[in-house]
Amino acid sequence: MVRFECDYLEGAPLPVLEAIAKANLEQNPGYGFDSHSDHARDLIRQACQAPEAGVYFLVGGTQANLTVIASCLKNYQGVIAPQTSHIFNHETGAIEATGHKILSVETADGKLTAQQVRDVCQAYWKETHALFFVQPGMVYISQTTEVGTMYSRAEIAAIHDVCKEYGMKLFVDGARLGYALAAPDSDMTLADLPQICDVFTVGGTKQGALFGEAVVIMDEDLSKEFPYHIKQRGGLLAKGWLLGVQYEALFTDDLYMKSARHAADLAVKVYKGLKEAGYSFLYEHQTNQQLPIVTEEQLKTISQSYSVDHFADLPDGRIAIRICTSWATKEKDVDALLAFMKTLK
Amino acid sequence: MVRFECDYLEGAPLPVLEAIAKANLEQNPGYGFDSHSDHARDLIRQACQAPEAGVYFLVGGTQANLTVIASCLKNYQGVIAPQTSHIFNHETGAIEATGHKILSVETADGKLTAQQVRDVCQAYWKETHALFFVQPGMVYISQTTEVGTMYSRAEIAAIHDVCKEYGMKLFVDGARLGYALAAPDSDMTLADLPQICDVFTVGGTKQGALFGEAVVIMDEDLSKEFPYHIKQRGGLLAKGWLLGVQYEALFTDDLYMKSARHAADLAVKVYKGLKEAGYSFLYEHQTNQQLPIVTEEQLKTISQSYSVDHFADLPDGRIAIRICTSWATKEKDVDALLAFMKTLK
Amino acid sequence: MVRFECDYLEGAPLPVLEAIAKANLEQNPGYGFDSHSDHARDLIRQACQAPEAGVYFLVGGTQANLTVIASCLKNYQGVIAPQTSHIFNHETGAIEATGHKILSVETADGKLTAQQVRDVCQAYWKETHALFFVQPGMVYISQTTEVGTMYSRAEIAAIHDVCKEYGMKLFVDGARLGYALAAPDSDMTLADLPQICDVFTVGGTKQGALFGEAVVIMDEDLSKEFPYHIKQRGGLLAKGWLLGVQYEALFTDDLYMKSARHAADLAVKVYKGLKEAGYSFLYEHQTNQQLPIVTEEQLKTISQSYSVDHFADLPDGRIAIRICTSWATKEKDVDALLAFMKTLK
Amino acid sequence: MVRFECDYLEGAPLPVLEAIAKANLEQNPGYGFDSHSDHARDLIRQACQAPEAGVYFLVGGTQANLTVIASCLKNYQGVIAPQTSHIFNHETGAIEATGHKILSVETADGKLTAQQVRDVCQAYWKETHALFFVQPGMVYISQTTEVGTMYSRAEIAAIHDVCKEYGMKLFVDGARLGYALAAPDSDMTLADLPQICDVFTVGGTKQGALFGEAVVIMDEDLSKEFPYHIKQRGGLLAKGWLLGVQYEALFTDDLYMKSARHAADLAVKVYKGLKEAGYSFLYEHQTNQQLPIVTEEQLKTISQSYSVDHFADLPDGRIAIRICTSWATKEKDVDALLAFMKTLK
Repeated sequence: MVRFECDYLEGAPLPVLEAIAKANLEQNPGYGFDSHSDHARDLIRQACQAPEAGVYFLVGGTQANLTVIASCLKNYQGVIAPQTSHIFNHETGAIEATGHKILSVETADGKLTAQQVRDVCQAYWKETHALFFVQPGMVYISQTTEVGTMYSRAEIAAIHDVCKEYGMKLFVDGARLGYALAAPDSDMTLADLPQICDVFTVGGTKQGALFGEAVVIMDEDLSKEFPYHIKQRGGLLAKGWLLGVQYEALFTDDLYMKSARHAADLAVKVYKGLKEAGYSFLYEHQTNQQLPIVTEEQLKTISQSYSVDHFADLPDGRIAIRICTSWATKEKDVDALLAFMKTLK
Repeated sequence: MVRFECDYLEGAPLPVLEAIAKANLEQNPGYGFDSHSDHARDLIRQACQAPEAGVYFLVGGTQANLTVIASCLKNYQGVIAPQTSHIFNHETGAIEATGHKILSVETADGKLTAQQVRDVCQAYWKETHALFFVQPGMVYISQTTEVGTMYSRAEIAAIHDVCKEYGMKLFVDGARLGYALAAPDSDMTLADLPQICDVFTVGGTKQGALFGEAVVIMDEDLSKEFPYHIKQRGGLLAKGWLLGVQYEALFTDDLYMKSARHAADLAVKVYKGLKEAGYSFLYEHQTNQQLPIVTEEQLKTISQSYSVDHFADLPDGRIAIRICTSWATKEKDVDALLAFMKTLK
Repeated sequence: MVRFECDYLEGAPLPVLEAIAKANLEQNPGYGFDSHSDHARDLIRQACQAPEAGVYFLVGGTQANLTVIASCLKNYQGVIAPQTSHIFNHETGAIEATGHKILSVETADGKLTAQQVRDVCQAYWKETHALFFVQPGMVYISQTTEVGTMYSRAEIAAIHDVCKEYGMKLFVDGARLGYALAAPDSDMTLADLPQICDVFTVGGTKQGALFGEAVVIMDEDLSKEFPYHIKQRGGLLAKGWLLGVQYEALFTDDLYMKSARHAADLAVKVYKGLKEAGYSFLYEHQTNQQLPIVTEEQLKTISQSYSVDHFADLPDGRIAIRICTSWATKEKDVDALLAFMKTLK
Repeated sequence: MVRFECDYLEGAPLPVLEAIAKANLEQNPGYGFDSHSDHARDLIRQACQAPEAGVYFLVGGTQANLTVIASCLKNYQGVIAPQTSHIFNHETGAIEATGHKILSVETADGKLTAQQVRDVCQAYWKETHALFFVQPGMVYISQTTEVGTMYSRAEIAAIHDVCKEYGMKLFVDGARLGYALAAPDSDMTLADLPQICDVFTVGGTKQGALFGEAVVIMDEDLSKEFPYHIKQRGGLLAKGWLLGVQYEALFTDDLYMKSARHAADLAVKVYKGLKEAGYSFLYEHQTNQQLPIVTEEQLKTISQSYSVDHFADLPDGRIAIRICTSWATKEKDVDALLAFMKTLK
């Protein structure tokens, strides 16, 4: 059975695996104090055109999210995030377990707007006795979002402006950042990120690493303190060079963006193919998480041959499924899936 | 420069690397819900002769420690541990960050005794107003300890008896469990552990895995709840199969214990060689973390050719250094080091 | 200026003050281990007809809420509560600071329904990978609610049934419990509470004590552990007898319910008076927090002579104000306020 | 039976009680936003000669300690404190429950020395990989200490100097500050405190208030944020004016220091009387917690007529008991106790 349910089903592209194998019997100092990690940090700084940025490697996304958020907030502050956000929904209360409320905002399409952020802040700061309320201390968004939608550069920059106005940090979760940047309607590159937010991740797990999220921090104070937070939260990998060599490989010969473009191209193919076949979508976009709507009957039939994600139940009984592409997706599998799904209409 | 400062300098034995490479383009479901992880869990259960045990894979040691401890304790309880323990000293307050005090006990040699545990408990439970004190809720020990000493089966069993008496769980941190079991004076096998404690780890990171700690849980309730704790603490690896295939390889053809015996044999060689050369030790034992005492002068000379760990400063100005062997240590490097250190005496 | 903005503006009825003065120079053991506290606990158990209940005195409401909730939940569990609830809105993230998410539910009138609780639970428990979500572990409601509405006995009992079905505890915040029980349409007495929930508070601060909330616990295990939680959260009053003597006085000669009825009667008067004068209400009910709707102009005029709470802004620009009665409210002040507000229509 | 076991057995001096009674039917705004609290804050600022200090009233000591400490520390920092300190021993892990380790130091007499603080800091900051250790972020001491010993002005100032050198705040827990200042060998007044520390409490509970600790904060940023921390930790008293009027009374006509001197004078009497009678002491000093050493037999006899605290078991089987004086202690009771204890020698 061919699987499309998520974008982290396979391991890593060959150069990444080879880099690990090559470094395997080197003797590397622990905890990221090795030359591979240093080199990888430099490569990322270059790709982001942010020579002063702090770059830290963590193993996973929830870990990265909780560590970044807990290190940015004061005890009595919370993080503004969309109600569809990963941190609000899919991390077993990991943020709250660090003591912080998520100030969730209902969105039209998984994307927070600058106005919504401003509304939350205005409501808080006009309170006479604000001390009874959780102070908004930062904003969390994902690019692409958890429903596959995508922010434009201007949209993120506008949120960042509101953040600066209210003394908050903006954190962009880039677990699928490459897939966003490679999407046909993207108007950004990696080098834009340092301009329009305070912290972001350059996701590895879903985009060509066996595992790993690179946290890029613009704020110098936060950056200096971040390693302490990583260690305390259990996120410091003993053999940190494993993350170093993977990001070295991903940021050599443009492997990161090449892998992303592969997934992005196939995502467009999936979108157009299903559209043409008459499917509608929960949210319409061209990124690597496609959410076509099917009947229960259709899902059953599809599930006999393919593994897709049962994403959401619609009020009318139909189901939004998730079909993901990734760096590892084979075009022939996409073609076969599309052909198959066409027959169901 | 050859490095002896710790036992996690290299990656993994070839069969482990090959297992990852082989599974690389399979499509495995995430979060450990894959067949490799299932198989690895079975292999560990077999090796431990604990068919009912829960087995969970985490990436790192601090993560494993904080997740196990936080999941075992009630809010007002603390964990009894030696003052030399990793959780008390080397994890940036990771346990306290989950809200729990470590009830630290000064030990003669890094090993807690059953009597010491009993003393702590008796002192607590005889209090008229015990509610002002942190209730001892579990015991944490490491095998081997952070200073290389080792518990006998009877010593751990005696601690376990006290634990049962006072309604506490016993957690054995096995980051170096294999190296303990393979030591010449060991009187235990993996199958003993389930008999004499409630939770233990079968360490991978230091013993042949790229990364990974297997948490083995005897208590059924704790086991059922453990995945929730893992996820909440950011410890659930998206591509959990990476841990599965590594432990599959380690527990196939006895690779785990073979690797351990390699390190253990070389540890004995280091111990005997240094002893013969006239070195004394901070703690005398034959496990894979040897702690010979040198002068500052000697350390400088050694450091020109070898990387060793500056482990502890002695009151007389001398220094205990740490020399570790691992599955990856080369006998010729040990021979050269011993020859070299002999010349310094 | 006469104040109506809340129900905790004054100190305490004379018998409560006198009880403190009388015990002032006694030498009472600390921390609630005194005979007044014991007696007060007995009086409350009698009033609740719950001879086996645990009764604990805390100083304040937020403290009581966070201590009860943190002591009931496992790390990975959250508490279901209305979006209008005090814990969700007015406690600076105190619950999240203990590590727990509030699973908030939008309600029509500040009251959770059994069906809503069931919906949250069903959604959670049908998840294939529930471990990514916060497990509902308890339910929090307030009687009366934060908007003055009131549950019937059957409504609470129905929620309790769902709780039992899903292994959750039901916590009823009774900061204004007396005012609910004394309301004209109440169908409950104190003795009903132990039948229809697991933990509840008998509020003092707003109902005749200088300060104090009595936590009544039906669950034996929770009750036994509760003092440890109180102390750890900083909620154990050194001179616990101060709480004891106040509750002794409140539960002697029916002072608690007499005080409540005074407030309840005046609340009805406020409600009827304003209704008659042509005011509409944000939520229509007859309890001690009346929420009439006024124009900005009217609020300005009222505020020249009375202090009322600016409770909520309506979309049409009008404002819901809060007018509270309490045990200390004077009938002549209510009469004057009503007469005054009549002139504004 | 006359009680001497602690210094919080009685309520409050008459002027304090009268102040509450007088304000009882006033309508005071909640949460300390009332004129009594404002006035009390001013009186304390005057007494401390610290016109810019922030003054906040909390109900109890553990609450004050945990709120101050959690608001001063970064997540990865801990607080240096003596092993005999209240926060380390007697608060059920309340500090750790906020996520912070107490870096405990063994002391000769319950008093931390500047050198000990320096040693802890030097050990930390010389670490190559300091990120594995808990960073010392503040220092906690008590004046008088938990064993009745007392710091000189110079001793506290010296600790403060080390704190400033290492970027740490110094917190002086003044639960018994008045009793220290009134002791015969004191070389300080309230006005010294702002010069030699960053935060301190002016204890009420043990020194003439029914309850209450005034937290005085020199740091402007910390002061501004403190109310948020108080509310989040459940420490904001609804009827904050209760604290205001008590401190108003205590700081009118020098009642605070008059009460303290009464206790201090009787403490000297106890000390000299027992000394003369041939008793030795666990720690020898003249403050209000006297710790004479008695045999088990003697303790039994004493306990038939007096309530004293079984403070510590000595290795030789003897027992240090605690005899406290307070503002409420009667001289005739002290005389009788001394006469009685003389007969036991």
